[in-house]
Amino acid sequence: MPRSFNVVQYGVGPIGQLCLKTLLSKPGHINLVGAIDIDPDKVGKDVADVLGLDTPTGVIISGDAAGVLSETKPDVVVHTTSSFLARMYDQLILCASHGAHVVSSTEELSYPYERHPEVSKELDQVARENGVTLLGTGVNPGYAMDALALMATGVSNEVQSIVINREVDAGFRRLPLQRKVGAGITEAEFSEKKATGLFGHIGLVESIRMVADGLGWNIDRIEEHLDPVVSGKQVETPFLTVEKGQVAGIHHHAYGYDGDELLLTLDLKMFVGAENPRDEVVIDGDPPMHLVAHGGIFGDTATVATLVNGIPLVVDAAPGLKTVKDVPLLRAFGTR
Amino acid sequence: MPRSFNVVQYGVGPIGQLCLKTLLSKPGHINLVGAIDIDPDKVGKDVADVLGLDTPTGVIISGDAAGVLSETKPDVVVHTTSSFLARMYDQLILCASHGAHVVSSTEELSYPYERHPEVSKELDQVARENGVTLLGTGVNPGYAMDALALMATGVSNEVQSIVINREVDAGFRRLPLQRKVGAGITEAEFSEKKATGLFGHIGLVESIRMVADGLGWNIDRIEEHLDPVVSGKQVETPFLTVEKGQVAGIHHHAYGYDGDELLLTLDLKMFVGAENPRDEVVIDGDPPMHLVAHGGIFGDTATVATLVNGIPLVVDAAPGLKTVKDVPLLRAFGTR
Repeated sequence: MPRSFNVVQYGVGPIGQLCLKTLLSKPGHINLVGAIDIDPDKVGKDVADVLGLDTPTGVIISGDAAGVLSETKPDVVVHTTSSFLARMYDQLILCASHGAHVVSSTEELSYPYERHPEVSKELDQVARENGVTLLGTGVNPGYAMDALALMATGVSNEVQSIVINREVDAGFRRLPLQRKVGAGITEAEFSEKKATGLFGHIGLVESIRMVADGLGWNIDRIEEHLDPVVSGKQVETPFLTVEKGQVAGIHHHAYGYDGDELLLTLDLKMFVGAENPRDEVVIDGDPPMHLVAHGGIFGDTATVATLVNGIPLVVDAAPGLKTVKDVPLLRAFGTR
Repeated sequence: MPRSFNVVQYGVGPIGQLCLKTLLSKPGHINLVGAIDIDPDKVGKDVADVLGLDTPTGVIISGDAAGVLSETKPDVVVHTTSSFLARMYDQLILCASHGAHVVSSTEELSYPYERHPEVSKELDQVARENGVTLLGTGVNPGYAMDALALMATGVSNEVQSIVINREVDAGFRRLPLQRKVGAGITEAEFSEKKATGLFGHIGLVESIRMVADGLGWNIDRIEEHLDPVVSGKQVETPFLTVEKGQVAGIHHHAYGYDGDELLLTLDLKMFVGAENPRDEVVIDGDPPMHLVAHGGIFGDTATVATLVNGIPLVVDAAPGLKTVKDVPLLRAFGTR
């Protein structure tokens, strides 16, 4: 008998829709019982209409989160509404208080203890009181630049330092992602966007904190840099063209120090026209370890996978606010 | 404050000695409180004498396991005495009944439920009764051909099949390992050794069972093959010479089927003169995943790492008999 879980999808944006497709593709393992979104264009519609499916699912998207949770009593909520904890922690509280475990794509939730110590404490307490587990996961943060690196250190007796490289060819990603990394803008426009503080990737600091915590390392200083990747050639994607000299994407890099010692280097490049897309972990240790996911881990579909595959992990975990390093190792769920 | 554990080393053979060196290299994290072995040449000696250290450790190797456990009350026993569960499960019972968690290199313990269902049940029960965790770990089985593969599936929504390749250059390994893989013998001698049933690697079946269990896959048939790798050239190691046409090592391969469907392929080559040593996981899935540990995971030192790094995992895990897929992801411990 395969295990089976009742699941509510909370957030029906681009990632939420991919989640819904995957959830619906696993009958016998996952029973979709509800969907929540505030978008007036979606509320009241069958999930199938939004996904472009021929057959209605019977699950109507609702804007009334509390109502859906009360009525459907899901085992797990797959949550994909925001990158920022401050904008949605009340949603997590709501899920927990309805007795639902949560797997969330919220980047800041992947390791929330440093940026949001008070909120983390509250979330942990509410989760424990309700006997549920809250887990932030995803590819980055949540896997490529933290969990995989921790796993890579498991076969080393000594570890001096770790370098983690992620190079993503944004040309194969959806348009919002290409826009998000600034593909096709000028360097001046890049500087303007950067100055807003809302540009670039969220998660390098979370990944550094998670790896350091997992290894019991002290990190007292994190340096973070955001630079444009300027294209040396014309690159065309299905959505846009980047001219030579224009911005092709972002180079986001962060460094974790203990005193003067550089312990953790995280180097993320997301741009159109990347020639060696990969995820790479280099452990300077005894023995050393050089782990490469050739071709890289595909951001959107893989993020969906981490969320859906996280469902049995949160059900089995001890209650509380957890990170991917606290739960058993992620593995595929409901594939047969 | 770093976490610190009192540890007994059970088994002072080649791997046990490497464990002792690593345990002693982590003061403030690990406090070595005892060492157990039945070898009359070792009993009564300070651990330092066996390891060739200048300074006595104060830990005297004893043949009286129960006495050591009663006296030192370790948090964790690092156990390295045998590959076979039948030969040592009473040792595990002894540790558990003294309230000690165990991390063991016993290959058959890595996934014991199929080969030894009754013993597994008893071990689980005794562990639960005593509030301790028993974990079989190591590189292979325990990491390279199972845990790492499971982790690799975590970013896939669909998984059709998995191919796991491990190629080890035995020329860089210790002499017993080179002998174990048959380096330098003739093909006829290889056939004789193979006929004894005691030759070759232990663990492919365990790895297949663990991966299948982790994914919730049914495997109703496992095929296992053991062939010689015949050397196409003369190869010299620090310990021996393999002539052209002699056996360079083993090619051990196993296949897990559900009906007629081949789901899992495990291909292990351990031989002197390997030119592309690596650990490789190829997930045929959506998205696919191609993960490679370039250079491979170094067997002996990495096995020691999995054992020592497993110490905090067994302390934190729920009581019972566990496998590496049940505990949080392995990561380095006590490296700073």
